[in-house]
This record gives sequence, C-alpha cells and structure tokens, in this order.
Amino acid sequence: MKAALFDSSGQMLGLRRTPTPHRGTETAEAVLERVEELLAEFAHTFPHVRPAGIGLIAPGVVDDDQGIGRESVNLDWNDVPFRRLLEDRLHLPASFSHDVRAAGEAEFQLGAARGFGTVVVIIVGTGIAASLIVNGRAHVAGGYAGELGHSIVDPRGARCACGARGCLETVGSAGAISRRYAEATGQEPVGAREVLALAAAGDPAARRIWNEAIDALALGIAQVTAILAPEAVVIGGGLAEAGDSLFVPLRERVDALLSFHRRPLVLPALIGENAGLIGAALRARAAADRSGQAS
Amino acid sequence: MKAALFDSSGQMLGLRRTPTPHRGTETAEAVLERVEELLAEFAHTFPHVRPAGIGLIAPGVVDDDQGIGRESVNLDWNDVPFRRLLEDRLHLPASFSHDVRAAGEAEFQLGAARGFGTVVVIIVGTGIAASLIVNGRAHVAGGYAGELGHSIVDPRGARCACGARGCLETVGSAGAISRRYAEATGQEPVGAREVLALAAAGDPAARRIWNEAIDALALGIAQVTAILAPEAVVIGGGLAEAGDSLFVPLRERVDALLSFHRRPLVLPALIGENAGLIGAALRARAAADRSGQAS
Repeated sequence: MKAALFDSSGQMLGLRRTPTPHRGTETAEAVLERVEELLAEFAHTFPHVRPAGIGLIAPGVVDDDQGIGRESVNLDWNDVPFRRLLEDRLHLPASFSHDVRAAGEAEFQLGAARGFGTVVVIIVGTGIAASLIVNGRAHVAGGYAGELGHSIVDPRGARCACGARGCLETVGSAGAISRRYAEATGQEPVGAREVLALAAAGDPAARRIWNEAIDALALGIAQVTAILAPEAVVIGGGLAEAGDSLFVPLRERVDALLSFHRRPLVLPALIGENAGLIGAALRARAAADRSGQAS
Repeated sequence: MKAALFDSSGQMLGLRRTPTPHRGTETAEAVLERVEELLAEFAHTFPHVRPAGIGLIAPGVVDDDQGIGRESVNLDWNDVPFRRLLEDRLHLPASFSHDVRAAGEAEFQLGAARGFGTVVVIIVGTGIAASLIVNGRAHVAGGYAGELGHSIVDPRGARCACGARGCLETVGSAGAISRRYAEATGQEPVGAREVLALAAAGDPAARRIWNEAIDALALGIAQVTAILAPEAVVIGGGLAEAGDSLFVPLRERVDALLSFHRRPLVLPALIGENAGLIGAALRARAAADRSGQAS
C-alpha cells in the first residue's frame, strides 16, 4: 500500500509504503483498519493539514461509480462497499476507485491525456489495464470497462491467468516479456527492461519476444481505435519507461494496422509511478467538493 | 434512398424507395435536391401532415454531433455540412446522422437495446458497423466510432477493401460469407442465407465458412466486451435474420472466449430493415424539439 497526504495546494506530503495487510476473507476489514491507522499517523505528523476527504484505490473489479469493490482474487473480497465503510468509519467524504482508472484520472486532469475528449490511458506493467475517458467522462460499466489486457489478440494463443486464451496481457505486458524470455531460454527470469537491452544487443529470443509484445500492443490499440476512436492513447506503467524503444516502433505498427480510421496520438504518460495516488487524491477532492455542495 | 413521413403519433407514411442520385463530386447537391423533391411530394400526398423537422442519414464517416458528412467514397463527398445545408434550404430543423447510428438510436429508444445504459448495436450486412451507446449517449468521436467491422480479428488475414488486413468484415459479414463461398467453390456467388442452408445440408465449404464467420463475430464481440463492457450487444442487419442458426452458436462462442468479463446479453434487433429510417425520424423529432426550445 502506498499512502500520502495532499494539502490544498496539491502538494504531496509524507508518501509512505506499507505492506498490504492480508487476512484471508477479512482482508477488506484489515485494509480499512490500516487506512484508519495511516490517517492517525498523518494527523500526528502533519497536525496543520486537516483532511477534507479520502480516496482509496484498489486493483480487481472496482465499481468507481458505486464505490464498491466487486471482486479481487488477490485480496479475497467480493462486493465490499468501501466508500460507505470509509465514510462511516472515518467521518470524511470518501471515494473508492480502480487503481488504473485513478491513474487515468490523474493523466486526464494533469498529465498526457489532458485536453482530449475521448482518450484511453493504458497501464502496461505486470498486467495491462486501461482507463477509458469517453466524451470527458470515465467509463466504468460497473467495474468491467477497460480490460484491454484481457481483449484477445490471438484466439489460438497461450492460456491467460484469467482463464481465456490469447489475451493481450499474455504477450504485450512487461510480465509476459519477462516470463516468455525465461521460458524461451530456460534461464532465470529477468525484467522486461533487461529483455529489451538483450534485444538491442542482438539476442534473437529477446528480439522476437520484444517484437511480439509490440505487435500485440499495436493490435490492441488498433482494436480500441476501431471501436472507440480515441483522440489519443496514453501509455504508462513500467513498460512505458522504455521510451523511444517502445513508442517509435509502436506508433509505426499502429499506423500500419489502420486504414481510414482516425489515428490516435500515441503518447507516453507524464505523471509516472504516483499517478494512481494522485488520481485517488483528485477523487477525494471531488468527494469533498460534492459533500460541501450537498451540505 | 428510402424516404418516409412520420406523423406526430409516430406512424410511418408513404414509405418509398428511389435510386440515390449519383452526380460525381456533385452527389451531395444532387441528394439535397432529391430530398427537396421528396418533401414536396409528401406535402402533396399528405397535405394534413406538416413536417416539424427532417432527418437525413448516410453511410461513410458521418459526424452526427456536427451534422457533417466527413467522407463517403461511394457518394464522393468530403466535409459536407448537411445539417446546415438542409436547414438553409428547407427552413426546417434538421439532423444528419450515420445510418448505423440512426438504426442504433431506434433500437435504443424503441427496440432491443432499450433500457440498457451501455449497449452496442451491430449491423451485419454487406459490411459490419456498430452503434455505441455509452452511459445512455451515442458515442460518435467525430464520426469514427463504432467501426467494429474494421477491427482486426486476424492480422495475418485477408486484405480488406479498406486497405487493412484481417478486419472482422472480411470474414464475419454477410458479404464475406457470400464472397468466400464463391471463392472456395468457384461457383457464382449466392447469398449468405443460401450458404447457411448449404451448411445445414452438410456442404463442407459452406460449414467452414459459416463457422469462421461466427468465430470472427464472437471474437469481435469479445473485444468490445473487454473494452467497453456493454450490458447487451444487439445484432441486426441481413445476417441477423438467420435467427437461432446465428444466435445460438454465437452466444456459445462469445461465452467460451470470455472469463471474468461481464457477459453481455446477445440479442437480435427488433426493429428490422426500417431501423435506420425510424432512427432518422427520432433524430428529426429531437432537432424539432431543440428548435422549439430555442425559439
């Protein structure tokens, strides 16, 4: 878990990382307890900053509109009304959002996705997920929107951890690059950045796996383009740190896959690894603003 | 061109078909002239029905929000501001929309897509295009949204008329079924319905081509599901008339491709071949209502 306090000027204070408490089917309760402790710690360390709202984010299937954690396999919860539980427990206006949609919100309000009406923010790390802004508004669909990592790029492809076959995530994620290189060479896994370095040094397996990842990402972007026609596609997450080694060939291949379609700009994310945290803060502020208007 | 007059109760009057006037780069002007003639004919035939608005629809790249025909290769126009031209010429509130989005509007207001928040209406005929309703609102994206027929299902597939490779339309459309069967057998082309009948009678080429069409459609629906997570997918157009022969295997294959995704209902369109015309009438009424509110 990462946590921080933001003051009214938007400055991030006291950023800290603590292990996510796992307590089987009581993990949701354990997370809420930890949030309460963190709030008390911040109150002690920054006595002059009085929180006006709280924003919690999580992976899995999250219904941002309702503030409910629909499902998380890793965190062992189903249909937990986090927003209401936070408000009842902490007496603060609260939001509960999906981690990637929160990162997308930060890019949309403050980063590379700013100024577009319809824009897709794709976070490519261990897995792949997207935040969809459609006509200026986050599309949530009960928590199921934006699962671009689980859109199929090859129906005869490898089985994905999700159970489907040939998901984009099985080829195009940093996790897949690392895993596939280890499988191809029989060596201990190395990170996607190292596979890229090996590819640049001429290692044939690394080149093939890196190229296949870019092909798969380009195909996923082409699918989103045909369906939603976003003005821009913003890519963040660990893989985006590869910079031009990713973006130059990726733009070429997206371009080659499209015909009359409106070509989206393919842009690197600007906010970096704290985008989720900043998005959570933006949503906390929105919750505080709504609460202020309502009272 | 199909044209009809709708009275205030919604009854369709005087439905007629006339050839679309083609006049090279003057086709847009020729269409506007023909619309004016049709309006005069309706006024003569139905003197007691006074039109309050006009709705024109067309294929190609159409920006419904701006009322502009961005591009039509067949009709030889670019960036024609049809809505403004209609209003200036006919002194009536007007709308100009994409034909498939108009059909989607009819299904959303009156047909199988009614009552859903996010729903995709796919028209499968000679080609394939989709109308996207996202959180209750048509998603247009400048005219480029919903090109599901030109989403890639096989990057190593056949070249599409659009110039890209392996578009859904090259395998999953009624046009593709007809063309591919003719290519496979060296016979004169027959319609997709006949290919289905041949498949049912055990013809191996017909079975393969029909199955590949359903596989491709299922893959396209799975992609839309991963990205947008619609509550329902409504299928209309010529191929949907195949009924259970299409919908039963299609639902099975969509189901088999998905894992944790929210499964959309896969429903046949209800309105039939006049859905576009009815959607145009609904948008004409909306234009008349807006005009009444503005004055």
